[in-house]
Amino acid sequence: MTMVVESENGLHVVGTTPTRPDGLDKVTGRATFADDIYLPRMLHGKVLRSPHAHAKIKAISTRKATALPGVHAVITATDFPEPATAIESLGEGGMVDIKDLADNCIAKKRVFYDGHAVAAVAADNPHIAEQAAGLITVDYEVLEAVMDVQSAMADTAPVIHENFTPGSFFAQTEKAGPNAGRLEFSGGDINKGFSDATVVVEREFITQTVHQGYIESHVTTVQWDNDDRITVWTSSQGHFGIRDQLAGILNIPMSNINVIPLEIGGAFGGKDSVYLDPLAAMLSKKSGRPVKMAMSRNEVLRATGPSSGTHMKVRMGANDNGILLAADISFAYEAGAFPGGPVAAGILTATTRYNIPNYRLEGFDVILNKPRVKPYRAPGATQSHFAVETVMDELAKKLRIDPIEFRLKNAMKTGDRLVLGFPCPAIGGIELLEAVKSHPHYRSPLDGEKRGRGVAYGFWYGGGGVSSAELSVNADGTVQVCTGSCDMSGTRMTLAMQAAEALGIAVSEVLVKTGDTQSIGYTLPAWGSRTTFATGIACITVAEKVITKMIERAAGIWAVDFENVTFNSGVFSDRNDSDHSFTFKELAAKHDSTGGAICAQATVSPQGVGFQLAAYLVDVEVDTSTGKVTILRSTLFQDVGKAVHPDYVSGQMQGGVVQGLGWALNEEYVYADDGTLSNTTFLDYRMPTALDSPMTETVILETPNPGHPYGVRGAGEVSIVNPPAAVANAIYDAVGIRMNALPMSPKAVLEKLLKHDAAEF
Amino acid sequence: MTMVVESENGLHVVGTTPTRPDGLDKVTGRATFADDIYLPRMLHGKVLRSPHAHAKIKAISTRKATALPGVHAVITATDFPEPATAIESLGEGGMVDIKDLADNCIAKKRVFYDGHAVAAVAADNPHIAEQAAGLITVDYEVLEAVMDVQSAMADTAPVIHENFTPGSFFAQTEKAGPNAGRLEFSGGDINKGFSDATVVVEREFITQTVHQGYIESHVTTVQWDNDDRITVWTSSQGHFGIRDQLAGILNIPMSNINVIPLEIGGAFGGKDSVYLDPLAAMLSKKSGRPVKMAMSRNEVLRATGPSSGTHMKVRMGANDNGILLAADISFAYEAGAFPGGPVAAGILTATTRYNIPNYRLEGFDVILNKPRVKPYRAPGATQSHFAVETVMDELAKKLRIDPIEFRLKNAMKTGDRLVLGFPCPAIGGIELLEAVKSHPHYRSPLDGEKRGRGVAYGFWYGGGGVSSAELSVNADGTVQVCTGSCDMSGTRMTLAMQAAEALGIAVSEVLVKTGDTQSIGYTLPAWGSRTTFATGIACITVAEKVITKMIERAAGIWAVDFENVTFNSGVFSDRNDSDHSFTFKELAAKHDSTGGAICAQATVSPQGVGFQLAAYLVDVEVDTSTGKVTILRSTLFQDVGKAVHPDYVSGQMQGGVVQGLGWALNEEYVYADDGTLSNTTFLDYRMPTALDSPMTETVILETPNPGHPYGVRGAGEVSIVNPPAAVANAIYDAVGIRMNALPMSPKAVLEKLLKHDAAEF
Repeated sequence: MTMVVESENGLHVVGTTPTRPDGLDKVTGRATFADDIYLPRMLHGKVLRSPHAHAKIKAISTRKATALPGVHAVITATDFPEPATAIESLGEGGMVDIKDLADNCIAKKRVFYDGHAVAAVAADNPHIAEQAAGLITVDYEVLEAVMDVQSAMADTAPVIHENFTPGSFFAQTEKAGPNAGRLEFSGGDINKGFSDATVVVEREFITQTVHQGYIESHVTTVQWDNDDRITVWTSSQGHFGIRDQLAGILNIPMSNINVIPLEIGGAFGGKDSVYLDPLAAMLSKKSGRPVKMAMSRNEVLRATGPSSGTHMKVRMGANDNGILLAADISFAYEAGAFPGGPVAAGILTATTRYNIPNYRLEGFDVILNKPRVKPYRAPGATQSHFAVETVMDELAKKLRIDPIEFRLKNAMKTGDRLVLGFPCPAIGGIELLEAVKSHPHYRSPLDGEKRGRGVAYGFWYGGGGVSSAELSVNADGTVQVCTGSCDMSGTRMTLAMQAAEALGIAVSEVLVKTGDTQSIGYTLPAWGSRTTFATGIACITVAEKVITKMIERAAGIWAVDFENVTFNSGVFSDRNDSDHSFTFKELAAKHDSTGGAICAQATVSPQGVGFQLAAYLVDVEVDTSTGKVTILRSTLFQDVGKAVHPDYVSGQMQGGVVQGLGWALNEEYVYADDGTLSNTTFLDYRMPTALDSPMTETVILETPNPGHPYGVRGAGEVSIVNPPAAVANAIYDAVGIRMNALPMSPKAVLEKLLKHDAAEF
Repeated sequence: MTMVVESENGLHVVGTTPTRPDGLDKVTGRATFADDIYLPRMLHGKVLRSPHAHAKIKAISTRKATALPGVHAVITATDFPEPATAIESLGEGGMVDIKDLADNCIAKKRVFYDGHAVAAVAADNPHIAEQAAGLITVDYEVLEAVMDVQSAMADTAPVIHENFTPGSFFAQTEKAGPNAGRLEFSGGDINKGFSDATVVVEREFITQTVHQGYIESHVTTVQWDNDDRITVWTSSQGHFGIRDQLAGILNIPMSNINVIPLEIGGAFGGKDSVYLDPLAAMLSKKSGRPVKMAMSRNEVLRATGPSSGTHMKVRMGANDNGILLAADISFAYEAGAFPGGPVAAGILTATTRYNIPNYRLEGFDVILNKPRVKPYRAPGATQSHFAVETVMDELAKKLRIDPIEFRLKNAMKTGDRLVLGFPCPAIGGIELLEAVKSHPHYRSPLDGEKRGRGVAYGFWYGGGGVSSAELSVNADGTVQVCTGSCDMSGTRMTLAMQAAEALGIAVSEVLVKTGDTQSIGYTLPAWGSRTTFATGIACITVAEKVITKMIERAAGIWAVDFENVTFNSGVFSDRNDSDHSFTFKELAAKHDSTGGAICAQATVSPQGVGFQLAAYLVDVEVDTSTGKVTILRSTLFQDVGKAVHPDYVSGQMQGGVVQGLGWALNEEYVYADDGTLSNTTFLDYRMPTALDSPMTETVILETPNPGHPYGVRGAGEVSIVNPPAAVANAIYDAVGIRMNALPMSPKAVLEKLLKHDAAEF
């Protein structure tokens, strides 16, 4: 059930809920996904992966594999050229080290994690390819595996990369210890802050590695032509990034590569990097045939990019009035086998929603023998919110202040600077927290044994950046808009709605297409909740260009000045002659006789995606005999600026909550002592199913984002950040134990309960 | 061997001969052609075609076909909606009647020619589909077939279409008789012209129906999605036209259809209409599965669009000085089963290259029971040139003037009006004829028995019109240009060369892609020699837009005024600071830090493609015992304005000559008395093979076309118009007989020879 606080702004299309054009085809599988690609003479590729978490490769023999009938090509790292030296925009927000990326796709001298690709085979069918991969013999010298951040940061830890360039999303880091980079942001006087504080809470937290768990695995088909032109059909959330990374790894011109986007069966941040694509490309080059490769779930969990496990320390202090005075946090985030994890985003979102005059935010980007981490919905923030919002709850309890009141006292408001360093643009934090306070869920009593209520308040930046759109008007008045953004979350519709709004026509008249990298202007991946925002602005901009051209056509037909032609909600009129009037359709039909087709293009790079705020309210019941936590009631409050399609926004909010509950209660990578992953299927890696997922009520608030013509702010990510903390707070409210590790599985909860009971004697 | 008269104009790329990027893939079949498309659950469709040239359909029973296991859908005309009422730009130059087009794709109440589609079937494989088609029973009432223009124009002729809208390429016509439309252009005083003439020649000519003979047949795959979005993978020379025609026939919005262009195995004018596409679409809708359909050669010859057979009357007069005074022509061209043949183009190109003060040009567009005709390389002109250039030769002989001298006396020059009605833009007719006169081939003696030399002089308008291009600059300085023009003749390269010229970079840095109809702006089909001209101008225009944006970036980096930044042959410089300089590549690499990706779009509609002139010189030997004509030497002279890629231009010239020799010596549709086509394979429909084709020397002249920045004029068509007349004139020169019918097959020549010998007794 969705509740929208409607804003009166004269929008005709934005804010409505038309049926998505591709829904039925997507759910019936009729839509074209990456695995639906078949090419003549196509081969199938398989990867040989490391069974060790950390080892030297002393020798590889591919002789037997190559000799197997039906095998057309076998490759190892030696088949690849030196990667191109990094250039601007390699597609992972520009932060990717192309050499690391190449090394991650196929191991050179060492394997850095269980599942690291070592060799690949292309054969007539997947079975022969798999058999051949099994015939490749690798001589390993097994090395000590480093499996958690504490041991990785120890001075005595084995050095994983002799010389690595410390880095992290959003920020560079300085080298700190054998396997870590460090960064810090601070302000005010941390010592004075704590000395003035009358209530201080200091806690440590642990979270485990978790995967985005997209249902569709990684699938790619690559054709390498005789003239070194490469066509790639692949499932990604950013096909320009895939192209740029491929160009770098294969060291060939970007223009030679055409990446054709396909429908996506989930991504959540995990599908903007190449894994199979360079292998399929090299196998295609070597065999002279197109090559298709698809990962099993085992490969997806072992060898693609999960989110970081962490070790987090939080110390926060407030005065008796419940005013926060100081925060000192030190977060160590897993980067996986190569530097570049989300720790900067983690510490920068840890306390940003509060005004805390004195703070020190320290982060460590820690290399260890796990797969290279990737963004996962509000990357880094879910971990940091688990820590900080639990401490906030404990502070509120100590201060005997209602947790919402406590957050209201300290909430960042429009214009506040502090951690941001610049005045916060229009933001609806206060309205959001007030909405929680006055909501029936918050006001209703919670009866029953072992039941508790928890709340958490969250923040996420979101992203803007480069998007392109091309718009063509057809003779029948219909319109197609081609953009560089794939549809991960219904954006095919939300972009059509924004174009239709600007053109003053019905959304059913607008077809939105995702163009391949040779057909459309550069567009950053669908990440940072940017597509509906930034690509939306590209669609509005190109629509306005088209309207300008059509006004010129109308002026020409009527032989009047451009200035005399007005355009209002789809109708072109002559100020001075009421007989002069065209609907959009009527004028479109005249294009041939007025100078030919009407088309326009726009490449924009808007910033100011608008910060995302959300509050999550949850009621739980704890089974003290098993430790099982059951969700009784779930409500998410979120400010989205303007909900272009409220149903989709609710879907994003509910999806984020379910994923957050997965982090909270079940999901974790379980590693054996030798550093190999033990739970490599969805039976063992326990994501919430429909049975585990409560109905989440969504409350959409709309504080317009000044950075978007219709007030849209990103809406896709912040929903995930609160559930772990809110559930932990609810568990405390229910049974009086403070959970300080994720997941809060029955086993973990039961252990805490037993310790707790013991302590009470 | 190619001779290029180089013009000194400071071009760096245009005029060179780089290797085509797609050559090897095209000749090895690795390139993706329409038949290479495979989709999951794809069905195969087959068509049931009429065995009668003209019949009423009384009943169709599809019961048995539908019941056959493996059959998923059977359709007839009753499955289709009423076509959308015609709107501007339905893709066949706007001249198509969508109802006729629909009727031509699948017969409604009557079949109008042998091979006319009556029903279609989709099944698991082509064999089942063919078997099922054979199980469909049709009850015909056979009607009298009308098989030649004379009988079609007789008042007593059966009426083929009760109410038809008379029409023709370039011009409307008035209804004339039961099955014909008529049009006329005249000037001066025709009677006075002939009374002043001292030499008059009047002749009649007959030509037969001929086919373009593209090697690749028609192939299409269509997927009709649940929400009525349709994706079409098809081989065409104008995928926007295919989309518009489909939208009309299926009566759905244009934006719902995406036509994806593929490599083309020849078209020559015959691939801008739908045949199978609407059938595959309806079969896909009915079956819920993608459907592929491919024509056999039998189907291509019987049911696609050949060029018109004709009956032509010519009367021309000159004075003793060899000055042409009058021309009176009356040409009847086959339109096939529906109105709209190329007769207007035929009569408008008949005498245009000459200044004839008094003229009457009459044309008839004649409907009969043959397949609907389609354009074929300089549509209508090959027939008209055969007639007029033969008469010109006879006049020259009567006047005892060298045939080139005779044409020089009367040749249209820059600024002349007459038939054109407007002053002729820069044209090199005189230079061209002088080049023939001074060429070694023309000056060399021709020794030997039964040998003769013939010449003909030809004209073609060509076309301009709407083309779109989008250009994106990559971070590595490479560039992709996406246009709406498919590559039929190496235009992938000639467009890249023009973009590279404008950008001042190497052509190897530019990738040209053909966009689908949902990705790129509207672009007219590859016809009328327009692609290198009009789409070339789109590429130059969009390149200039990009350069302007890059000058802005450079000005920003150097903090100087836009005006102070210069761009010369790929280098950006600061007028006032010699240290300020970027190559294109250097500046491209900075796009991220200077505002994001650099892209632009252009939709242009240039006219003034520039007229095409050519002269063809041929030596033949006639075997008087068999009538076989052997080509001894072959030279084509053509003015192309500017040869963007001289080797490709020569290829176009040589290809046109070979097709013209096919018309001259071998090709014809042979119909049985019942109106069914007898020669439905390439064994019986005799196109020139490599063994029949002489080496044709090409002489390229370059009189710059003022309508194009680099002087380019269309180059693809005029090469075909002269060979039939030149060969006829050479045969006369060799053995003294005047051939007045095509083809001049051994049989035809022998009959003439025997009559001639008889006459000499």
